Amino acid sequence: MDQVECLFCRTKRSWDLFDPFCPECREPMVFATTRRKREFALKKDLALEKFLDFLPLEKVDRALSLGEGDTPLVPLRRLMKKHGFPCVLGKNEMMNPTGSFKDRGTAVAVQKASAVGIRKIGTVSTGNMAASTAAYGAKAGLKTIVFLKEDSTPEKILSTGIHGSVLLQVKGDYGKIFCRSYEIGRKQGIFFINSIDPLRIEGYKITGFETFFQLGRRAPRYIFVPVSSGGHIIGLIRSFEDLKQERLIKTLPIFVGVQAKGCSPIAQAYACGKERYRRLTKVQTVAHAISNPSPPGGNLVLRMIRESGGLIISVTDREILSAQRELAEYEGIFADPASATTLAALIRLSRTQPFKPKDEAVLVITGSGLKSMETLERQNIPVIRTTVEGLEKSLSSRMKT
Amino acid sequence: MDQVECLFCRTKRSWDLFDPFCPECREPMVFATTRRKREFALKKDLALEKFLDFLPLEKVDRALSLGEGDTPLVPLRRLMKKHGFPCVLGKNEMMNPTGSFKDRGTAVAVQKASAVGIRKIGTVSTGNMAASTAAYGAKAGLKTIVFLKEDSTPEKILSTGIHGSVLLQVKGDYGKIFCRSYEIGRKQGIFFINSIDPLRIEGYKITGFETFFQLGRRAPRYIFVPVSSGGHIIGLIRSFEDLKQERLIKTLPIFVGVQAKGCSPIAQAYACGKERYRRLTKVQTVAHAISNPSPPGGNLVLRMIRESGGLIISVTDREILSAQRELAEYEGIFADPASATTLAALIRLSRTQPFKPKDEAVLVITGSGLKSMETLERQNIPVIRTTVEGLEKSLSSRMKT
Repeated sequence: MDQVECLFCRTKRSWDLFDPFCPECREPMVFATTRRKREFALKKDLALEKFLDFLPLEKVDRALSLGEGDTPLVPLRRLMKKHGFPCVLGKNEMMNPTGSFKDRGTAVAVQKASAVGIRKIGTVSTGNMAASTAAYGAKAGLKTIVFLKEDSTPEKILSTGIHGSVLLQVKGDYGKIFCRSYEIGRKQGIFFINSIDPLRIEGYKITGFETFFQLGRRAPRYIFVPVSSGGHIIGLIRSFEDLKQERLIKTLPIFVGVQAKGCSPIAQAYACGKERYRRLTKVQTVAHAISNPSPPGGNLVLRMIRESGGLIISVTDREILSAQRELAEYEGIFADPASATTLAALIRLSRTQPFKPKDEAVLVITGSGLKSMETLERQNIPVIRTTVEGLEKSLSSRMKT
Repeated sequence: MDQVECLFCRTKRSWDLFDPFCPECREPMVFATTRRKREFALKKDLALEKFLDFLPLEKVDRALSLGEGDTPLVPLRRLMKKHGFPCVLGKNEMMNPTGSFKDRGTAVAVQKASAVGIRKIGTVSTGNMAASTAAYGAKAGLKTIVFLKEDSTPEKILSTGIHGSVLLQVKGDYGKIFCRSYEIGRKQGIFFINSIDPLRIEGYKITGFETFFQLGRRAPRYIFVPVSSGGHIIGLIRSFEDLKQERLIKTLPIFVGVQAKGCSPIAQAYACGKERYRRLTKVQTVAHAISNPSPPGGNLVLRMIRESGGLIISVTDREILSAQRELAEYEGIFADPASATTLAALIRLSRTQPFKPKDEAVLVITGSGLKSMETLERQNIPVIRTTVEGLEKSLSSRMKT
């Protein structure tokens, strides 16, 4: 029997796919850690199979996989040199099947949906999670329903809709749409796999496990990760807690959750020493993928970050755009602005607390820049116009500058 | 000493990075197969390291890697069922660092450029190859020059330019720009890594090797691959020739090169039994990534396909768009139209020659749909507009249909 647990009031109950929140305090619940003996099966093909013992799944149905996970952990050598960083690596989650970390969570949730006989899934999202859910739903042959915000861009709508999902573009408050999704889900038998679904959180644990093994069975000193709803960082912290429980590491990494200044409810609460964040009414940032004014996992993130000795900071749009450019120009990674917050935060932190040689940092690059093309207009990219005849001369004069 | 060889007139010479063509017959040259003992190093991390013995590289510099290769080979079970196919798998090359198979070739070429001390690289491209070359050039700290066609879309220009490369948008004949690039390259010391560069072809071999091992050390019966300049399919054929030479397989797969009907110079020549293709003046297809009216590797593809018992066919835009939709709706893969030609060709072939139970087919999915968003406007994707209050009712009525 799958047990979920509230990390606030310690309420336990059996997993309910139609309601991921604690019946007592309405905070998001996570799967309770089992006491069973767990092993890593690193020789298996699929990421889910390798870490199956650490997931609330009995088995992995390979027919539902798009080949998620096993993403590269790449040393960012040129950025280290430029900024005098000791050791920085990028965990490139763009290299998932639909181009973002969301596939990790969707993969686990769809395995579970299929195992319990659910035939309809859904999500409330405007971007990466919509495309991810639609793609995995298609692969599994599930009816997939996506609730989109009124102002979603045509690109995001179309790249979700191509998978044959039912798209509803909804006028009204995003928080309300989120709540309604669970009510409708229970009535109509639709499993809404939203941002802080406990199965998603389990999927994000795999990113942590992979990082541990890619570093040669070590935890890094720092992990920088963008924070929106909170599900991703909660999963990452849980993975290292698992590793600690297995006595594979002694101390947790320092988790640095990063928000965009224009939408930073969790960072604001953290800075003021508050236990709960305050919902925002107006937000404005270039990092759309993490622009969430009322993150459902916000309070849990605050608690877990405090208990694990991490921190939450925010960075400006200017810092984000500059970091996006640096990732592309120095490391060949075209990430979205949300991902670039991690580098922006590292640069900012390094100014106030110089890193020591052993302070290895991992930046989690969560999504592809190809999905936020509108941002590039702010990057001022020069193009030289010429003809075949004038080509050589144009190039020569450009190369001299 | 690196030897390249013309497979037409058997001319051999040492590799010249500024001229990839045969001095005698001007066909593209390939690296001559060495007689040295070669081994697979499957326990290594990087794809390049695993297959190093089969590449014209002395060693792999990990600092230049973006984590290319090791892409999933995914069974397309729902499409098999729908169409009654025996066994079809997708080799998902979208899951490379910049979202296309081009990264395989760029990775090898940049390793070599760095090894021989070249500090400037370039390419002539309008899409995937431009972004790939710009990204790897950035990672390696090389000055990167990209020649773009006059009518390149802003998206393609910006996603290349973000990596800091020098962009020249050139008015004039594309074939002429291609030729000029080598002249300018030699004069200014720029290594132009264009589509049929012999190092790119070496990189594409790795896709073949991976497929062989992913199938459990077997060759598939068929490999379907989109054909543009010809470099990709030449590399794939070379890889299985290598495997045959190593006595790991007895017969080559049947290679099915696919072109879009609106730009199919090689398929036309193949259908007429000609040895050489005729350059086209007018082309029109939704599959922009393979819209090449004068493919520099065209004649070599014709020869290699004939000698290996393969075939080259073309598919209509209608078939391509339908296949793109099916890949997304049945398998959760949002591929570009060029990639979808492989499924379109499989469907078409299966009508005239039913596949036998053992006729395993691999479709090489070459690039991401995210880079061809303009196509989606032709896919007629329905969106339902509603409000929070009307959400439940709108959904219920939609689910009944």
